[in-house]
Amino acid sequence: MTKIRDDWDYTEYKDQQTWPRYTGIPTFMRAPYSEALDELDIALVGVPFDGGVTNRPGARHGPREIRNQSSLMRRTSQETGISPFSLCRIADIGDAWPQRPFHLEESLAEIANFFAKVHAAGVLPVSAGGDHSVTLPIFRAIAKDRPVGMIHFDAHCDTGDDYLGSKFHHGAPFRRAVEEGLLDPKRTIQIGIRGGVNDAKIWQFSHDSGMRVIYMEEFLEIGVKGAIAEARRVVGDGPTYLSFDVDGLDPVFAPGTGTPEIGGFSTAEALAMLRGLRGLNYVGGDVVEVAPCFDPGYVTALAGSQIMFEILCLVAEAHAGRRD
Amino acid sequence: MTKIRDDWDYTEYKDQQTWPRYTGIPTFMRAPYSEALDELDIALVGVPFDGGVTNRPGARHGPREIRNQSSLMRRTSQETGISPFSLCRIADIGDAWPQRPFHLEESLAEIANFFAKVHAAGVLPVSAGGDHSVTLPIFRAIAKDRPVGMIHFDAHCDTGDDYLGSKFHHGAPFRRAVEEGLLDPKRTIQIGIRGGVNDAKIWQFSHDSGMRVIYMEEFLEIGVKGAIAEARRVVGDGPTYLSFDVDGLDPVFAPGTGTPEIGGFSTAEALAMLRGLRGLNYVGGDVVEVAPCFDPGYVTALAGSQIMFEILCLVAEAHAGRRD
Amino acid sequence: MTKIRDDWDYTEYKDQQTWPRYTGIPTFMRAPYSEALDELDIALVGVPFDGGVTNRPGARHGPREIRNQSSLMRRTSQETGISPFSLCRIADIGDAWPQRPFHLEESLAEIANFFAKVHAAGVLPVSAGGDHSVTLPIFRAIAKDRPVGMIHFDAHCDTGDDYLGSKFHHGAPFRRAVEEGLLDPKRTIQIGIRGGVNDAKIWQFSHDSGMRVIYMEEFLEIGVKGAIAEARRVVGDGPTYLSFDVDGLDPVFAPGTGTPEIGGFSTAEALAMLRGLRGLNYVGGDVVEVAPCFDPGYVTALAGSQIMFEILCLVAEAHAGRRD
Amino acid sequence: MTKIRDDWDYTEYKDQQTWPRYTGIPTFMRAPYSEALDELDIALVGVPFDGGVTNRPGARHGPREIRNQSSLMRRTSQETGISPFSLCRIADIGDAWPQRPFHLEESLAEIANFFAKVHAAGVLPVSAGGDHSVTLPIFRAIAKDRPVGMIHFDAHCDTGDDYLGSKFHHGAPFRRAVEEGLLDPKRTIQIGIRGGVNDAKIWQFSHDSGMRVIYMEEFLEIGVKGAIAEARRVVGDGPTYLSFDVDGLDPVFAPGTGTPEIGGFSTAEALAMLRGLRGLNYVGGDVVEVAPCFDPGYVTALAGSQIMFEILCLVAEAHAGRRD
Amino acid sequence: MTKIRDDWDYTEYKDQQTWPRYTGIPTFMRAPYSEALDELDIALVGVPFDGGVTNRPGARHGPREIRNQSSLMRRTSQETGISPFSLCRIADIGDAWPQRPFHLEESLAEIANFFAKVHAAGVLPVSAGGDHSVTLPIFRAIAKDRPVGMIHFDAHCDTGDDYLGSKFHHGAPFRRAVEEGLLDPKRTIQIGIRGGVNDAKIWQFSHDSGMRVIYMEEFLEIGVKGAIAEARRVVGDGPTYLSFDVDGLDPVFAPGTGTPEIGGFSTAEALAMLRGLRGLNYVGGDVVEVAPCFDPGYVTALAGSQIMFEILCLVAEAHAGRRD
Amino acid sequence: MTKIRDDWDYTEYKDQQTWPRYTGIPTFMRAPYSEALDELDIALVGVPFDGGVTNRPGARHGPREIRNQSSLMRRTSQETGISPFSLCRIADIGDAWPQRPFHLEESLAEIANFFAKVHAAGVLPVSAGGDHSVTLPIFRAIAKDRPVGMIHFDAHCDTGDDYLGSKFHHGAPFRRAVEEGLLDPKRTIQIGIRGGVNDAKIWQFSHDSGMRVIYMEEFLEIGVKGAIAEARRVVGDGPTYLSFDVDGLDPVFAPGTGTPEIGGFSTAEALAMLRGLRGLNYVGGDVVEVAPCFDPGYVTALAGSQIMFEILCLVAEAHAGRRD
Repeated sequence: MTKIRDDWDYTEYKDQQTWPRYTGIPTFMRAPYSEALDELDIALVGVPFDGGVTNRPGARHGPREIRNQSSLMRRTSQETGISPFSLCRIADIGDAWPQRPFHLEESLAEIANFFAKVHAAGVLPVSAGGDHSVTLPIFRAIAKDRPVGMIHFDAHCDTGDDYLGSKFHHGAPFRRAVEEGLLDPKRTIQIGIRGGVNDAKIWQFSHDSGMRVIYMEEFLEIGVKGAIAEARRVVGDGPTYLSFDVDGLDPVFAPGTGTPEIGGFSTAEALAMLRGLRGLNYVGGDVVEVAPCFDPGYVTALAGSQIMFEILCLVAEAHAGRRD
Repeated sequence: MTKIRDDWDYTEYKDQQTWPRYTGIPTFMRAPYSEALDELDIALVGVPFDGGVTNRPGARHGPREIRNQSSLMRRTSQETGISPFSLCRIADIGDAWPQRPFHLEESLAEIANFFAKVHAAGVLPVSAGGDHSVTLPIFRAIAKDRPVGMIHFDAHCDTGDDYLGSKFHHGAPFRRAVEEGLLDPKRTIQIGIRGGVNDAKIWQFSHDSGMRVIYMEEFLEIGVKGAIAEARRVVGDGPTYLSFDVDGLDPVFAPGTGTPEIGGFSTAEALAMLRGLRGLNYVGGDVVEVAPCFDPGYVTALAGSQIMFEILCLVAEAHAGRRD
Repeated sequence: MTKIRDDWDYTEYKDQQTWPRYTGIPTFMRAPYSEALDELDIALVGVPFDGGVTNRPGARHGPREIRNQSSLMRRTSQETGISPFSLCRIADIGDAWPQRPFHLEESLAEIANFFAKVHAAGVLPVSAGGDHSVTLPIFRAIAKDRPVGMIHFDAHCDTGDDYLGSKFHHGAPFRRAVEEGLLDPKRTIQIGIRGGVNDAKIWQFSHDSGMRVIYMEEFLEIGVKGAIAEARRVVGDGPTYLSFDVDGLDPVFAPGTGTPEIGGFSTAEALAMLRGLRGLNYVGGDVVEVAPCFDPGYVTALAGSQIMFEILCLVAEAHAGRRD
Repeated sequence: MTKIRDDWDYTEYKDQQTWPRYTGIPTFMRAPYSEALDELDIALVGVPFDGGVTNRPGARHGPREIRNQSSLMRRTSQETGISPFSLCRIADIGDAWPQRPFHLEESLAEIANFFAKVHAAGVLPVSAGGDHSVTLPIFRAIAKDRPVGMIHFDAHCDTGDDYLGSKFHHGAPFRRAVEEGLLDPKRTIQIGIRGGVNDAKIWQFSHDSGMRVIYMEEFLEIGVKGAIAEARRVVGDGPTYLSFDVDGLDPVFAPGTGTPEIGGFSTAEALAMLRGLRGLNYVGGDVVEVAPCFDPGYVTALAGSQIMFEILCLVAEAHAGRRD
Repeated sequence: MTKIRDDWDYTEYKDQQTWPRYTGIPTFMRAPYSEALDELDIALVGVPFDGGVTNRPGARHGPREIRNQSSLMRRTSQETGISPFSLCRIADIGDAWPQRPFHLEESLAEIANFFAKVHAAGVLPVSAGGDHSVTLPIFRAIAKDRPVGMIHFDAHCDTGDDYLGSKFHHGAPFRRAVEEGLLDPKRTIQIGIRGGVNDAKIWQFSHDSGMRVIYMEEFLEIGVKGAIAEARRVVGDGPTYLSFDVDGLDPVFAPGTGTPEIGGFSTAEALAMLRGLRGLNYVGGDVVEVAPCFDPGYVTALAGSQIMFEILCLVAEAHAGRRD
Repeated sequence: MTKIRDDWDYTEYKDQQTWPRYTGIPTFMRAPYSEALDELDIALVGVPFDGGVTNRPGARHGPREIRNQSSLMRRTSQETGISPFSLCRIADIGDAWPQRPFHLEESLAEIANFFAKVHAAGVLPVSAGGDHSVTLPIFRAIAKDRPVGMIHFDAHCDTGDDYLGSKFHHGAPFRRAVEEGLLDPKRTIQIGIRGGVNDAKIWQFSHDSGMRVIYMEEFLEIGVKGAIAEARRVVGDGPTYLSFDVDGLDPVFAPGTGTPEIGGFSTAEALAMLRGLRGLNYVGGDVVEVAPCFDPGYVTALAGSQIMFEILCLVAEAHAGRRD
């Protein structure tokens, strides 16, 4: 059979991650596209669902634009030396898109089913949302046997209660996850919380359930190193998930999101925190709430891409460590 | 009681519609805000709901930006001489926003309830969407006693069937309206239809039920005058609703919409058609599918504002005529 | 009389500040609109005037977009616990727009007249500009009986002299305010000053009159806490006004402004300073120089909204304290 | 003296108008910059003044962006064969900027003085605004000895009366010009008028004074050729000025303007009209109301550049004809 | 082997072209990705090369954004009834990207090699550029045995000569193609030509070699039907290529391009022309010069997608006709 | 001879750097335009060349937009007190644009020739790129007699090797400069390096040759003062060049660039570093990689303007010091 690239002349471009960035099909980080779970250690997944937003929609287009901007990623982290594609078998497996997107609860069930297959195959997911409601069905898949701990970057605790007539929305996934026995609040840390509230007790569930909440005021005091230390202490060596809502970043670093809150941390601080969190027992992670239609300079999707790459590094290193 | 504008010095600014356009609170066309239906003939209503979109969301912000751009509107149409605010008592009554927006069918029911109150008070609605699914609940309110006819500008017939697991979405309201006995297909004309289809028979319902469909090819042949003549012939003198989906316009005139289709008509053509449709028996109208986050130059919201004003002129003239 | 929301079904939405953010008429922070000064403690005022700019106009649209973005604000500050709408009677009273905007000095006089009514009614103003020239007429209203002190965030001292043939423009209000006996320079602190100058002595008036000027170099040394301490020391317990020019922020946090100067402070630093300035004797405040046409991602108007909310918290707490 | 381009190697680039478009200093059409009026036939002038706008400012930046985009212009019109730089001595003479921009009437006087010098030197001006108020002072310079006729493209007649406390603003220049004896209304045609009005008689002065007004409705009937014929008939062979307000174009062709009105003519129609108006007795012309901050895709400034080039062709041909 | 979509529940989504448009990997029109030429009739190819531009680069990102926007395409043309994916075996085969992009002539050679493989496999190419210089190497592959005719939509003839020291650039491909014996000028028609020129004879080669050139002036006279008739007459029944430079469209329909010229045709006119050109003997086609970084509202890439789909319809119908 | 500004009335505007910022022709910092090298100490030069980029082009438009935004610069640095235009004779000498831009190596040679003339006249260049490949030809001109040292701000070391078939591109200039004996690696410091790499040893040349590399991790530790101290130590008192790639800044401060890497330093930090580097033996400098088409809010070009001004201050002070 004749294939168009069969007699490709230069050996240096066998790996499409080294191609010029404006070429080719935009899979996540230009990883190969594959639906064959048996051949994978880690799956890069898009979750193009924003049916849980309470304000500005648009995160359904997040996976598309993160895939696009992620062509700027490269194979190896210069800072940590981690080279995830060398450590693990990684592919873009496409999108966990719900076939009944007009029904919020059925959508979450469909997403859970998708991730259940990934989990059943022993593959760890690193996902790009979508709004934050999608982390709950991911947990339903990967934490069904035992609760996980979580390192959670966000402007909001997302442990609210019913709103607009629904138990499920992007402000409540972690209350629901605790209630469903999927998330261990004692092993959960939330970093970057800030902004006004309509109900002064809106995040009370976080405190009552035992989560460690680092508000931005505290972060400004303890800094990157303090936050790293606390996160490591809280999650310990149990199975841990890392969830990064881009609205944890200040809106100038992430204008393209649905619920921006000024006064957040910077990308430099975010990267430093992520790189300080190596060696934990990661079982997956996600970056959520990238809404490209509010992102005129593409900085949010670019930040989302890099954060997804850093999470991939952490998960790949953990996976390789377990295997070795 | 001391009011801030009690001793306003210049008489020429008593009417806030003459204020400089960058001043004041952006109600629709800077009409007074009032919830007192008893004192109104026509209600300007926002319907900030985009839970029925199948692709790009964002039309929930349509009423906001149409209100903002509509400050550029003025009291009298130079072309037709109609001065709606002199003919009728008109106010912005706020938004028909659903309290359970995550539930599509309940949302439509809530919207219908809102418009039922408007209708019960004998007030005619002129609305700004929201996606096109919102016209169905408006019909449920205003056409519950007898079906209405419709002049419908759009790139799509919106007479599709179930999609993505739902009977209700922005591609199906007019099939549902006929099925529910709210819309008389024999008195319905659809103008501007075009674009690719996945199912070659997707709009077959329009044809089977007896709607008059003017595809863009025919429009290019018969022109503005031909379309006007056909529309007048089809709807006759029965009660008529006018629904204008901005994606009927070419995408350069309306980039800020969810499902753009290139090759549409221009704003000049749209205005000429609207102004050629005076003297019909209007019972309401709407402009839908303005999605500001895809509208970098604000041209879509500006066009939506002017179209809403033209519809208001038509409805006000009809109402005044009935009264006189 | 039938009102459209008379039988509103859910009790949780009685307060429109809890409505979804994309709904309703965009008053400041979705506060009620009212012109009845007798019933208010604090008035939220727009001043859509940019006739005093020396470079890029557009701040006349600032109140509109701040009103729009301020729907993202909520009732209570999570950080300080202040809930201004519970402490005081607050309304959006509309815009202090001049009827003779082509005449700079008459415009300032008209604006002063507007605020004089507010002041005469015993209402404290929290305003959104407009360019910085509007603070002078606010002072003419509220400081006519005795000079006030000021905490002033800005890239420029705005104590320049005549420019382009005018004593009045957005680079000179505070020189004029001192000359008119409205501002006590000994109780004035200016924070964030930077950028090139054409006249090396352009801000000499600040120094000569006794203002405390914290240039960005010094700010980088003393930090947020140092700036707070200095501000508290300088203004003491006398009547104090807080004026925040968004160009004090770095241009990436506030691209939408007329005279950006790179190298400013961040929103996180701004919020920390504002929250560190509780307990002073505030008589009003403003945020100025938001120019939406240069603000593609809306970050400036969002920052302006939050800053206006923080100022409102400070003023409301001060007012409530005086009353109690 | 050593000059950097003394030994420039390629002869084909002696004329900087042939340089790649991204190079060099952006004068109008990359014409030479010169203040030496004695050596010129036609002066390209910027008038960066928007002190007469009634809504959205920003046209003060029009000359800058027109200069920038005009690098895409070339030496010869392919359509008419006119090569203005071969026919006449043409230079960019810089900006007629008022030194007292805060004073509207003094600004107009300063602009008039600038153009008076141009006129006194026998040089014809082709200008880029600025808002439309600047055409009045140009007339004060070039029509002081006898009134001129005018071909005027616009959405508005600009023959309004006092507004916002001023006789002078961008909605009134041509009433003032007639009153001052500078413009012959019998030899004036206005093309493209449309849009709502607050005062149904706002343009009555045009009709009463004898101007020929082609509203968009009539334009849609008579077309480009009809408009050309009418314009030629009205202005005859007397001295004629051509003034093109970009808001005559539909807003999609000119989003970057202060007072857009949907339903205007296209650039193709505009060019066809301009090219159909050769051979008249032109004494100058202008393109006004380009406001770059509302022009995200630069299409307005590009259109303004081409229109300015077409006007230059007409004026250059007329001047060369008179000379020959 | 476990595949993630093995037990996909709904039959209606077997074809990914029917998935919601925001889902999945953006291949051209969501066609399958395949490098297996043996299994194809038509190849969709990206050519991300803009090394031949003379002004604004960026078309290297054209294939990416056309792929992204082309998710809005559907399987069947409603207007012509053509369903290309049912008629032929079609796949996205990826990008013909040159490995030595800094060397213009070598890049063209590499692109020619890529298309030579496609041609050798008997596969017809439908491509998305890249700048217009890429059509020459496509011709070198598909027209090496005999010259082809061409229907060419463009603002420029692209038959210029050496410029900026190079025989090869995006203003000269068709002169070079004639010189190399690849293009039959007698069977070539160029539609939409307009704009200024630095050299009055720049397109003389088109005329001298016998091409039929329809300038915009003529187009405005003869219209869509006249242009169709001329095109059919000129190319006859010989092998024909269709090349569509998006700058043939007016810049408001295609702001995202390198060399915009105002006054072009509309998308409605473009579609009508393309649909009037069925039944010719097509051997391939391309859409070129989409430069996303100048396309703030994505209208150019959307138009490019639809034009590519129309070309695909024409080529698929021709191919199926030959086979049957 | 009559000159348009001969009898300019106000003395305060003799220097066009004090004109309102929206007026006049945008030379760099509104310096006079002059090609007379004999009369200059320092030349401001644009290098509109982006033929060396490996990803997103557009930096060829950098000089244009930096010139435009640099109108916001003023004559004197408030922070350092340096007034470069008083210290030295400075002019904008136009652009070093290559006449054969399609040939990378010839382009570099042409640029070198341009700067050789500047150097031969004893004039120091302060340049605005263009991509970073242009610094190599500048070195060929100014360092031909002895190697220079360099303070280099960047996200990338730019000491890579051949890529995409070329020794020359924007990722390799400093390897080439060392190899050609133009740059002394022992006197070179690189600040801000970060981001992923495809080849873990891509910047090994920097280390092997003895350059001092401050990665962002180290920068976060040692801060502005540490970086200043290291830079001063490394370059000593030998001839030194300062090269500032705007992608050294975090992408939110510089979205308009070709190869953004999140997590960089801020403009406040950049300015503090530049101002801490006074008193060195500067022989020139540049700011590169400003790509306006990716810069929706103009913040990158504004930052580039200020950085260019700061470099000018450093070079002017050094030059004046040598002369005195």
